[in-house]
Amino acid sequence: MVNVGVIGMGYWGPNILRNFRSIDGVNVIAVCDKNPEVFKRIASLMNGIRVETDPEKVILSTDIDAVAIVTPVSTHYLLSKLALENGKHVFVEKPLTLKSSQAEELIELANVKRLKLMVDHTFIFTGAVKKIKQLIEYGEVGSIYYYDSVRVNLGLFQHDVNVIWDLAPHDFSIMSYIIKDDPVAISAWGSSHVNIREDIAYITVHYSTNIIAHISVNWLSPVKVRTTLIGGEKKMLVWNDLNADEKIKIYDKGVEVKNTEGIYDLLINYRTGDMWAPKVDQVEALKHECIHFIECIENDFAPINDGQCGLKVVKMLEACDQSLINDGRPVELKKSGTKVPIPLGDEL
Amino acid sequence: MVNVGVIGMGYWGPNILRNFRSIDGVNVIAVCDKNPEVFKRIASLMNGIRVETDPEKVILSTDIDAVAIVTPVSTHYLLSKLALENGKHVFVEKPLTLKSSQAEELIELANVKRLKLMVDHTFIFTGAVKKIKQLIEYGEVGSIYYYDSVRVNLGLFQHDVNVIWDLAPHDFSIMSYIIKDDPVAISAWGSSHVNIREDIAYITVHYSTNIIAHISVNWLSPVKVRTTLIGGEKKMLVWNDLNADEKIKIYDKGVEVKNTEGIYDLLINYRTGDMWAPKVDQVEALKHECIHFIECIENDFAPINDGQCGLKVVKMLEACDQSLINDGRPVELKKSGTKVPIPLGDEL
Amino acid sequence: MVNVGVIGMGYWGPNILRNFRSIDGVNVIAVCDKNPEVFKRIASLMNGIRVETDPEKVILSTDIDAVAIVTPVSTHYLLSKLALENGKHVFVEKPLTLKSSQAEELIELANVKRLKLMVDHTFIFTGAVKKIKQLIEYGEVGSIYYYDSVRVNLGLFQHDVNVIWDLAPHDFSIMSYIIKDDPVAISAWGSSHVNIREDIAYITVHYSTNIIAHISVNWLSPVKVRTTLIGGEKKMLVWNDLNADEKIKIYDKGVEVKNTEGIYDLLINYRTGDMWAPKVDQVEALKHECIHFIECIENDFAPINDGQCGLKVVKMLEACDQSLINDGRPVELKKSGTKVPIPLGDEL
Amino acid sequence: MVNVGVIGMGYWGPNILRNFRSIDGVNVIAVCDKNPEVFKRIASLMNGIRVETDPEKVILSTDIDAVAIVTPVSTHYLLSKLALENGKHVFVEKPLTLKSSQAEELIELANVKRLKLMVDHTFIFTGAVKKIKQLIEYGEVGSIYYYDSVRVNLGLFQHDVNVIWDLAPHDFSIMSYIIKDDPVAISAWGSSHVNIREDIAYITVHYSTNIIAHISVNWLSPVKVRTTLIGGEKKMLVWNDLNADEKIKIYDKGVEVKNTEGIYDLLINYRTGDMWAPKVDQVEALKHECIHFIECIENDFAPINDGQCGLKVVKMLEACDQSLINDGRPVELKKSGTKVPIPLGDEL
Repeated sequence: MVNVGVIGMGYWGPNILRNFRSIDGVNVIAVCDKNPEVFKRIASLMNGIRVETDPEKVILSTDIDAVAIVTPVSTHYLLSKLALENGKHVFVEKPLTLKSSQAEELIELANVKRLKLMVDHTFIFTGAVKKIKQLIEYGEVGSIYYYDSVRVNLGLFQHDVNVIWDLAPHDFSIMSYIIKDDPVAISAWGSSHVNIREDIAYITVHYSTNIIAHISVNWLSPVKVRTTLIGGEKKMLVWNDLNADEKIKIYDKGVEVKNTEGIYDLLINYRTGDMWAPKVDQVEALKHECIHFIECIENDFAPINDGQCGLKVVKMLEACDQSLINDGRPVELKKSGTKVPIPLGDEL
Repeated sequence: MVNVGVIGMGYWGPNILRNFRSIDGVNVIAVCDKNPEVFKRIASLMNGIRVETDPEKVILSTDIDAVAIVTPVSTHYLLSKLALENGKHVFVEKPLTLKSSQAEELIELANVKRLKLMVDHTFIFTGAVKKIKQLIEYGEVGSIYYYDSVRVNLGLFQHDVNVIWDLAPHDFSIMSYIIKDDPVAISAWGSSHVNIREDIAYITVHYSTNIIAHISVNWLSPVKVRTTLIGGEKKMLVWNDLNADEKIKIYDKGVEVKNTEGIYDLLINYRTGDMWAPKVDQVEALKHECIHFIECIENDFAPINDGQCGLKVVKMLEACDQSLINDGRPVELKKSGTKVPIPLGDEL
Repeated sequence: MVNVGVIGMGYWGPNILRNFRSIDGVNVIAVCDKNPEVFKRIASLMNGIRVETDPEKVILSTDIDAVAIVTPVSTHYLLSKLALENGKHVFVEKPLTLKSSQAEELIELANVKRLKLMVDHTFIFTGAVKKIKQLIEYGEVGSIYYYDSVRVNLGLFQHDVNVIWDLAPHDFSIMSYIIKDDPVAISAWGSSHVNIREDIAYITVHYSTNIIAHISVNWLSPVKVRTTLIGGEKKMLVWNDLNADEKIKIYDKGVEVKNTEGIYDLLINYRTGDMWAPKVDQVEALKHECIHFIECIENDFAPINDGQCGLKVVKMLEACDQSLINDGRPVELKKSGTKVPIPLGDEL
Repeated sequence: MVNVGVIGMGYWGPNILRNFRSIDGVNVIAVCDKNPEVFKRIASLMNGIRVETDPEKVILSTDIDAVAIVTPVSTHYLLSKLALENGKHVFVEKPLTLKSSQAEELIELANVKRLKLMVDHTFIFTGAVKKIKQLIEYGEVGSIYYYDSVRVNLGLFQHDVNVIWDLAPHDFSIMSYIIKDDPVAISAWGSSHVNIREDIAYITVHYSTNIIAHISVNWLSPVKVRTTLIGGEKKMLVWNDLNADEKIKIYDKGVEVKNTEGIYDLLINYRTGDMWAPKVDQVEALKHECIHFIECIENDFAPINDGQCGLKVVKMLEACDQSLINDGRPVELKKSGTKVPIPLGDEL
């Protein structure tokens, strides 16, 4: 039995609470939010659970083995650190921290303390993403040409981060999960209209190969879009996460270049074939993820979305920030964790 | 009666021919293509029309007043120049030329010769774009926040230009038509997978205000998408050009920031109201455009898509090319016609 | 404070429970299901609530004012009767009973006992249906020409009723709510493929005017459809209940017949104008309905979905059954509650 | 070389003309319409073709081998008869005639004269229907459970027939083509709102097995729908003819009934698997059909859509008419060509 405390009952916290409560072998001991009003809204989720308004009361509690930290980004580092120092396993909302140095510190601390540090990258537990990974690994898609994601809607504006920090971590974590190559640089362009922080942004992620990834994020769209195109040498696929029944469509379409000598116009052939929408696991991804957290604790496994995964995402976010203030100049993703601008042209 | 010759019977030429033939007051005298095979395919369009395989035979013909040049981009300049020099009005496919200097030369030549030079920017004659322009001009949309266009499909690869030169002129001409401000700089990122030329690219267009425009073009998408989001202070709209009946949807949605002192979380309000899909003119845009060309000739009017419009688009394409080879660095759009990279980095 | 017991924790019961729990002024005292296994599934909904497996324990309980009966149709009559006899207000799942005579008995009993009898016709509490009713009442739609509903999906097969009894009550209750005229006859055709009961059926409802209503219900469709077309003299509307954001679309389209003398072909004109999707209330309909039940109890109001409404629906279902066994012959809907086949032609 | 004349240049005639002109081995000699105005609209299709306003001028012409009759239904019989009597092969618009006795007479006449009589059932030449037939014949779908078609739009009202005669022949011809069993009876309900003829109707087609077919036709719908669900024992499919790229979707979904002794609730299992959209032939169906007509003439083959097919459809339409005036009573489809009402109940 793993005893869990959940800190933060805003938009996402109740979902974490509900899922941990639904798992055998988990005992949710306490929930916490600094605003006691929120507990009224979720009264039916909380029967028999201790209620706190001070996170330390949960983190320092001796009857708790693990904490889920579902608070604003700016608080992740200190709360996670305190939890790890006090011997708690940590499941923390994405992105892991505001700075990569903080993420590195947490990773180190978890290692030393032999505790699990897992970041909530929910999407890699969805049936859709698991199926996409499988299709790529089995060679169905062939070499990947591009990953192109549109993730737009009206709000919700976050107060401590911009639209990139809010929405792009989903794609960054998915890309890390399904694309073997590591990205080498990132460019980002953004604009703010309602607040001082960017509410619209466009991110291009560069690889050492000719893979190109692009992410469009927008808090000012009248319609919600969650569509990712993935193009490969052999097949192309469309993942529409808002489609209830046919989330992934795989197209047997492509372009072939013939080396024929002859008329130039004949060199490129299009191949169009069937479309196929595989059945995908419909279980709530967050449930799979919560179970994974508990299993990693119980069996001392490394989570697939561990601190290192979280760190990668934070580094990509930092690079975006740096590119934003440099007019979209690509920012190199150093493995060591430091990022420097890529020299552009001779004079630089 | 205006006597017209049409040069180039590839993918688009037969549409130009068909539309000119359908207009009262136009007499199509000759059609031309270097490949005589194409005439078989369009036999029913050509009854009673002279057939040529050498464009000069059309351009130098004394019984012709105006020529439509529907050939590969690389030939536009020379054919248009020859036509203007020989006293013909010119309707030329987009983009106008490969270089802005060529476009400027043609504009000057047309001025001197008092001839019409019109570029085929078909989209600004569509019911959808005309309605969007009207909505913006009447103040329905409010200040524009962003223009975000996705224009992707599988092929058709063009042989003398990349995907930007193929697809982005549509957006560039629409943006010039509906956005009052002039763009000040352009960034472009691209990648090639099938051929040496870019088949996927992302373009960000910068304005002196906080308007941001972004265009995603892709020849390797398994699905065809032609969707443009336009966000404004008052309303937001979605233009889906593939939707037969409801091309434009206007959303009474928005975000308002209150200057209230107090809890930060309450500052941003969302407004969601009705959606409205106005009826749009369904007449083929190309027909309106061909009529406009003839009317400009007959009444000595300046076309709304004249050489200057074509020049603007060519300058934007040139800036894209320059940004592509500079890793996405923004390239300034000089009014004078020359473009220089914006200096980036510490020395500023 | 109204004390409520909820009987039946199958597919729909937990939703009733959750909504009653979320309303101020309601105290859910007990829940009941004959299968104690179901309580595990909904543990988090039940904290502090008495659990029973025998409905009588709830119905006879002295600390309960009202019961919600969310059990199979065949049990509605006896459970409701027992509840009314024991002085409980009754909120019962649709359809009210298996026979109209039973429904009449319950209505009479509730009258005598001065208790509320309300049938769960959830749809008339949806934002969509309320908006449709409003549009019709305000004269926006004009005289109604037709109501055409498609309500198909894969399963869930019910065990005590056929597909008509499962799905058509939704449309019957909506039609009663939005169409002023009373239907005069019903025809139904069906077919069974998997079980002995009809799993596909088509229902035509006849009015004394030229309104025609048609309902297609199907448990064997690979796709879920919930679409209703309503055509009127002035406007036409499409209600797609599966569309999250634009449930109702109103088309300014129509047909006009001119009384011109002259060429027959010119008599009919089509009018096509704008489309408009009004914002509709997004609050869960069941919550509105549960509040309505409580308000009717507290203020001694008649529910808009009272026993009489439930009776109308049961009569229509009975007529369907009778038509089904008579090869689709229309069955008259007598106001008195008895139904006789409409004579067909003189010789019959 | 087959010499063809085309009679009737209304809505559909120009398509027939265009397709015959595009086929090698066909020489279109003459076109005819009583209204000479229509020829202006289609001038570009007619170069070098003789123009007539009197159909007899075409039918009696000695230089013509075959005529296409694309005129209102009421004229089909007399024009076809005259053509066959004068030794011309006949391609006639659907439905073949207004009465089955007329259709039988034309079939007999064509037999005696050894001429081809083919009815324009275009849909059976579409890639979609050919693929559906193939899937059924290969056993992919299993025993057919139902055929459910919705064919609605705004207008076009026809002047000599009701909405059933206009739209249902498409489904009747498709059903004959893909369903092995012959229908045994038809019920139809309709209503008229704008004109004296039915503009909305619902048709149920009965088979000797438990196959049920239903067709909804409507000239008063604000949206155009062309969707057919076909459910089978093994697979279910959705054919959406308005979907440009994925016209047919095949669902590996179904219901299985287990003969287990035990809890009733466990007897029915749902199977949901992948969805698959096969590539379908995109060539214009009418072109395939025109070629088929010519090939049947040249090789003395029987057309797959011969007079007998046309007769079947006319018999079904006649049965609809009879059912309409008998309040939806099922009308038996006698093989002999006469139809009598099915007795309903004992007392009849």
